[in-house]
Amino acid sequence: MNESKPAIETLTSLGEKIVQALHEKRYPILEIPDRTTSNIVYNEDTNHYVLGPSRSIRDSSNVKHVKRFAQLTWVASFAKELLKTSRTSSLRDLYYSSEAFGVGFSEQSESDRIVTDLECITGLPRESFGIYPEEHSSIYGEVVMCYTVPGYEGREIDLTVSPDGLPVGPALMTADPIESKAEIVLAVESGGMFSRLIETKAWKRFKAVLIQLGGQPPRSTRRLMRNLNAILGLPVYLFTDGDPWGMHIAKVVISGSANSAHIKDLTIPDAKWIGVTPEDIVQYSLPSEPMIDADLKRLDELAHDVRYSSSEWQDHIQQFKKLRVKAEQQAFSRFGMDYVVDTYLSKKIS
Amino acid sequence: MNESKPAIETLTSLGEKIVQALHEKRYPILEIPDRTTSNIVYNEDTNHYVLGPSRSIRDSSNVKHVKRFAQLTWVASFAKELLKTSRTSSLRDLYYSSEAFGVGFSEQSESDRIVTDLECITGLPRESFGIYPEEHSSIYGEVVMCYTVPGYEGREIDLTVSPDGLPVGPALMTADPIESKAEIVLAVESGGMFSRLIETKAWKRFKAVLIQLGGQPPRSTRRLMRNLNAILGLPVYLFTDGDPWGMHIAKVVISGSANSAHIKDLTIPDAKWIGVTPEDIVQYSLPSEPMIDADLKRLDELAHDVRYSSSEWQDHIQQFKKLRVKAEQQAFSRFGMDYVVDTYLSKKIS
Repeated sequence: MNESKPAIETLTSLGEKIVQALHEKRYPILEIPDRTTSNIVYNEDTNHYVLGPSRSIRDSSNVKHVKRFAQLTWVASFAKELLKTSRTSSLRDLYYSSEAFGVGFSEQSESDRIVTDLECITGLPRESFGIYPEEHSSIYGEVVMCYTVPGYEGREIDLTVSPDGLPVGPALMTADPIESKAEIVLAVESGGMFSRLIETKAWKRFKAVLIQLGGQPPRSTRRLMRNLNAILGLPVYLFTDGDPWGMHIAKVVISGSANSAHIKDLTIPDAKWIGVTPEDIVQYSLPSEPMIDADLKRLDELAHDVRYSSSEWQDHIQQFKKLRVKAEQQAFSRFGMDYVVDTYLSKKIS
Repeated sequence: MNESKPAIETLTSLGEKIVQALHEKRYPILEIPDRTTSNIVYNEDTNHYVLGPSRSIRDSSNVKHVKRFAQLTWVASFAKELLKTSRTSSLRDLYYSSEAFGVGFSEQSESDRIVTDLECITGLPRESFGIYPEEHSSIYGEVVMCYTVPGYEGREIDLTVSPDGLPVGPALMTADPIESKAEIVLAVESGGMFSRLIETKAWKRFKAVLIQLGGQPPRSTRRLMRNLNAILGLPVYLFTDGDPWGMHIAKVVISGSANSAHIKDLTIPDAKWIGVTPEDIVQYSLPSEPMIDADLKRLDELAHDVRYSSSEWQDHIQQFKKLRVKAEQQAFSRFGMDYVVDTYLSKKIS
């Protein structure tokens, strides 16, 4: 899954278009798919967000556009340099690297935005240019992956090698899944639950590759889960806290987010949210906390979100609203350390 | 470095003392080293914080003490259960596990405090009872460790196996360092810098084991660094952001914190803070930001902190106060991606 060749080609042809315009004494122009809310549409067939047909123009002859035009070409050249030297960069490093070039980013959010522009123009995620955020999730399970990063090409790694799990960094994200004794992917929200499932050998019992999402997971983790789903055919189960935020972590993995509407091949439409559902809170008498205003407000927003239009998801929202309480995945610990595996997950996964 | 046997013995003898008192129809009493500020003293010889001789009494015949007495015995029994079953628990899980027992923790900060009480009484860190926070740091380098956790006993792992690094979780923290081609430990504050040093093969060039601290590192990471220092004899270098917070991350690794004054064998007195020093900001003309009030206030606090009493550290503080600016470790990126390795670190480490 080394995507560096098509990415270099895409950047090269972007550069050639600009150079050609200059040779022909025209001001170069870029067409960028429009990311405003009005152009983000929910595709009911594929069950995720995509960008609509609207495009905006960045015209280097326009004084209002020229700064962002220059910033974008700098980001593109930085990305090409990364690919040519087989390096990666954090978004933060990219921001600092720009300082010597006088392209005028006044804060990181500005350079982050231009990186997203480049994604939209090229149709490629920043990960394929070697640009990453700093957060990592972790993975553990009986899958063998084969690295493609320099210095490790062709080297295989068994994802049970470290009992603390392995971080899903640039190297693992671009590795190819080779074989699997696991039959499902079980993604959990918290690090505590992840460690618990490793120690109790739940991964063996459920034949599961375990993934620690760590809150809303970075895109590299969503992509790795998708690869395990698409290439190895493993169904994906999501186990989060029982509150609107946990539910929405699952929903974004399943149906995508407006922020990533310009990125292809990131959603897992047939992934399943196991829980903690509001029904679970009642059925298992879980220790719970009252929802605060922010929770209730979030539920209202989700009730009107197209991704939640099915009756199953509307039911979850209504149940939460009726209960007005929330529970963490750790809440099962009140019944003993093994209950969540022996009873709850056993039932949900079978 | 499997500490479970002495830890079980310590807990057993604590329990026996309580049971014996009951057999003799006395109310059991616990003596807890006093953790109030007045009893935390800085040991100038060993260069770190320790608890003074003052002790407080927790008397089960006193209605004001009986709840915390019961909570402490519950935490001790939970810890023993973890050790007997070779499990670990996050602090969060411990809090939730208590719910079924009616020991009356109303929030996690309360159970965290009782865990610290148990540390003080036993003189053992919670890690030796298998109790951990959720945060992890990462490690990468030419060191071979041998696991002691169940299912992995005797299995060796080369810390270069994953090009994304390995998390310093419970398994790695309790593993024994076996051999090392590395000659130093180089700990860095940010994940971006950690990845950069892996990719540029700086670990090879400097013969370094790399550690990502991720802000103020969890104690398990400090302990692992100390083991590499004490057992393998590797000197430790610390590379943080150039601000009072980064400097203090280094200082806590070197001299310890008041919070951990009751824990032995955690400091690395001869570890060195490389930078980013205020002098570096000037010398390398680093992109910097003005300090905010909180930064300046923090400098004032540190100026009066016993750990900073040497003239070298007082100089750093005075320089920062004069400059009134701060810089991140990523700031070197303005000179190109390799500058931090080729120029800055080369000079600092040699």
